[in-house]
Amino acid sequence: MTQPRFAPLPALPYYAVIFTNQLADPALGYAAMADRIFALAQAQPGYLGAETTRDASGLGITVSYWSDEASILAWKQVSEHLIAQKMGIESWYAHYALRVAKVERAYSGPQERSL
Amino acid sequence: MTQPRFAPLPALPYYAVIFTNQLADPALGYAAMADRIFALAQAQPGYLGAETTRDASGLGITVSYWSDEASILAWKQVSEHLIAQKMGIESWYAHYALRVAKVERAYSGPQERSL
Repeated sequence: MTQPRFAPLPALPYYAVIFTNQLADPALGYAAMADRIFALAQAQPGYLGAETTRDASGLGITVSYWSDEASILAWKQVSEHLIAQKMGIESWYAHYALRVAKVERAYSGPQERSL
Repeated sequence: MTQPRFAPLPALPYYAVIFTNQLADPALGYAAMADRIFALAQAQPGYLGAETTRDASGLGITVSYWSDEASILAWKQVSEHLIAQKMGIESWYAHYALRVAKVERAYSGPQERSL
């Protein structure tokens, strides 16, 4: 794989965009656009990392991490991303939920037990 | 499936526990314990819902939603959950990251475009 599967744990606080989505079947052109959008996100100011997975039924969760809300709002307005959002709404996603949340505590393991 | 795949969108703010994990191979007994722990979580005070998915490589993301931090801390200390956490650390998870975040904005679609 080309991406690390776990995002780093930056200094707190930072922001998470939790995007849960059920792909329609078929979702033509989705994979290529998703790769492109992921590459664009990584080049955005304030991008800290992301974690993403999807099961065989097409239920996916992508959590991207950002230094602040302004970075998230700027990313939402990137033109190529706007096109992808429109295609997602119109054809790729049977349903989705998006939540923006401020990360206040974080740890990883098995090495670290807790904070 | 026995669970709704999308959690509701409760009144803001509320809390998200973002748990990203890579299962070890094999992860003996994991599925049965995960079902049991999920059922327990749903009966906890402050539980609002959860979304979970895992790909074929064993990378899973589970996001559970809670009314407040006290509910999250209480859930962390439930005895059967403590046992599961110990088994996760000692054998099931090759790696994991856990983040606690305050949800400040949320919307779903395709019906809702944005908040």
